[in-house]
Amino acid sequence: MTTLTLANARLVTLTGEGYGMIDKGWLRIENGRIAALGQGDAEGEDMGGRLVTPAPIDCHTHLVFGGDRAREFEMRLQGASYEEIARAGGGILSTVTATRAASEDDLVASALPRLDALLAEGAATVEVKSGYGLTVAHELKMLRAARRLAAERPVRIVTSWLAAHAVPPEYKDRADAYLDEVAIPGLRQAHAEGLVDAVDGFCEGIAFSVTQMARLFDVAAELGLPAKLHAEQLSHLGGSRLVAERGGLSADHVEYADEADAAALAQAGSVATLLPGAFYTLRETQAPPIAAFRKAGTVMALATDCNPGTSPLTSLLLTMNMGATFFRLTPGECLRGVTANAARALGLADCGRLEPGLRADLAVWNVAHPAELTYRIGFNPLHRRYFEGKPC
Amino acid sequence: MTTLTLANARLVTLTGEGYGMIDKGWLRIENGRIAALGQGDAEGEDMGGRLVTPAPIDCHTHLVFGGDRAREFEMRLQGASYEEIARAGGGILSTVTATRAASEDDLVASALPRLDALLAEGAATVEVKSGYGLTVAHELKMLRAARRLAAERPVRIVTSWLAAHAVPPEYKDRADAYLDEVAIPGLRQAHAEGLVDAVDGFCEGIAFSVTQMARLFDVAAELGLPAKLHAEQLSHLGGSRLVAERGGLSADHVEYADEADAAALAQAGSVATLLPGAFYTLRETQAPPIAAFRKAGTVMALATDCNPGTSPLTSLLLTMNMGATFFRLTPGECLRGVTANAARALGLADCGRLEPGLRADLAVWNVAHPAELTYRIGFNPLHRRYFEGKPC
Ligand SMILES: [Zn+2]
Ligand SMILES: [Zn+2]
Repeated sequence: MTTLTLANARLVTLTGEGYGMIDKGWLRIENGRIAALGQGDAEGEDMGGRLVTPAPIDCHTHLVFGGDRAREFEMRLQGASYEEIARAGGGILSTVTATRAASEDDLVASALPRLDALLAEGAATVEVKSGYGLTVAHELKMLRAARRLAAERPVRIVTSWLAAHAVPPEYKDRADAYLDEVAIPGLRQAHAEGLVDAVDGFCEGIAFSVTQMARLFDVAAELGLPAKLHAEQLSHLGGSRLVAERGGLSADHVEYADEADAAALAQAGSVATLLPGAFYTLRETQAPPIAAFRKAGTVMALATDCNPGTSPLTSLLLTMNMGATFFRLTPGECLRGVTANAARALGLADCGRLEPGLRADLAVWNVAHPAELTYRIGFNPLHRRYFEGKPC
Repeated sequence: MTTLTLANARLVTLTGEGYGMIDKGWLRIENGRIAALGQGDAEGEDMGGRLVTPAPIDCHTHLVFGGDRAREFEMRLQGASYEEIARAGGGILSTVTATRAASEDDLVASALPRLDALLAEGAATVEVKSGYGLTVAHELKMLRAARRLAAERPVRIVTSWLAAHAVPPEYKDRADAYLDEVAIPGLRQAHAEGLVDAVDGFCEGIAFSVTQMARLFDVAAELGLPAKLHAEQLSHLGGSRLVAERGGLSADHVEYADEADAAALAQAGSVATLLPGAFYTLRETQAPPIAAFRKAGTVMALATDCNPGTSPLTSLLLTMNMGATFFRLTPGECLRGVTANAARALGLADCGRLEPGLRADLAVWNVAHPAELTYRIGFNPLHRRYFEGKPC
């Protein structure tokens, strides 16, 4: 049995309301899990009074993809029109093309620096979606690459099947055929190969309807897979309600959600996952209904939405600061959003808080107060992280 | 003579218009300066085709200060009023109190992690202002701490005398007396001790008037020190015109500058230094007049404005992304803004570009195209930096 005790730490347990801080705390790790914790003197590794929080969890990323979109970004800022960018091969289809052209090894190699940026800020769990292959083979390739990341680095990878991300050109105006021929059979195959932990979709006027998503979720339910959805990002289509009806894990983006959506999500125990990086990049002005979420008791998570088009963001600390700056979340809500509540958004009951029995995924910070994690911009005060009890 | 050649590099020289890129380039360093550069095969250290740019320059920071403002940040997000925050000791005066209470050693120690964050992204030159002491002794202490940073790390520190940052409580409603008794005599003393490279002020309704700043600049001119100013941040007061009239280095913030200001700055050769971190933190909506600057040919720089109240930002890469996202600067303008144009804003003729004779302050990046530096958010692709020709 491997045992390790962290002593002289400022524990941020996130149990109960608020930070749940324990000053001069200790925490004992046994076999990768938190065995016990408490206050007072203890033998063990001296944390020097540093803050110890649950390791951050990025519960919504598109970390695996081919190519990048820097040139398109530059063209847009140089005044190019959308037509010119499309003609130059830009937009989401450029990522689809690059992802299809990439081998599984390529996808792993290009995702690793992005993953490393998240780990450098203490992350221990990262969700990764498919969604740039848009054929069965290429979607499966993406998820295999995602799974391999967990062999390359000390990190837990949780995958989502997002074939219903966009309708590829070969299925133009035939979204239902795409579902029947790619998204649904591919899901069955991904599930059979153990590649998928949840089913996701992009429910928006420019992508898939609530009815279409419901069809996909029927298959997910049949396979025993939980549902989540990109919902209410650009308009109010009803995706959040669908998630709530199906008892799904989370509705993500939710800028255009309303009070009834907030109540439905709260009642279903589904999480509202906020993605300020996309809000920032797209220069949106409609913030998610935070007051309604607070009133209804909707659980709020925060994630990077790391993707090459609308959020090339690989910092959860910056995501927290953006959550506070743009959405007026408190630092406590931001920290909970990337730990305890992010775990809920992934259906993980065994991480995200400091509590006996949970996995010892920990972040040790050179800060005195948890609010500092959200307050600073572009600064990484991580001292060390622990993944399943092991320093790394 | 120390000689070193970087070979197989993609040089971004920033000479002439645009990036001034040299593919398959080489660059020879002699005695800390760029001796020669060109295209083609060369003997030397293989850069593996990586991008080599001038090292970033942060031309506007308040890097040295006591305390932090995380608790105030949290209180505000928890709904506290400005009165409640003031009663709890918040606001700029809390930083003044903490800075006065700090020893010179304390100030150096607390500034180093912030400096290290900038250096980790390749920075070689950092401007640091006084302005939280607001007595002669405490302002001098701040600048001594700033100077010491250059002994602690391989970096060039450029200092600005910013005693005219705020009117301290003991001079309430007596701004002119504060200038006569603190800002001006302190400036003479700082100059005599070799502590100051430029004179700065906060020209705003809540701080000092144009007339008051002109009085301070008279003393600066007498001492042969260049002028710069926090101008047109919250209202149009005329600070930019004053900078232009005095042939000053830069007008900083300039959200409320107009076309005439842009033309005046351009004609005087004064730089408009844009500070998107403060724009972001304060959730401002009026962007600086970029179109007018472009039309007039005003030189634009970008900086972090790192300070504990309105921009606790320590990333020039993120500053570049914010300059593009909020102000619609092109990636080329952003890169120039933190290199060649930032050097101009500091009156430095010998860095900020890749050109024979200039200091060999270089950043080597794991990217293929310079636009990627601005495109990514919260990602640091630095491979290595060189300060005066030395890898560090
Ligand atoms: Zn997404
Ligand atoms: Zn400033």
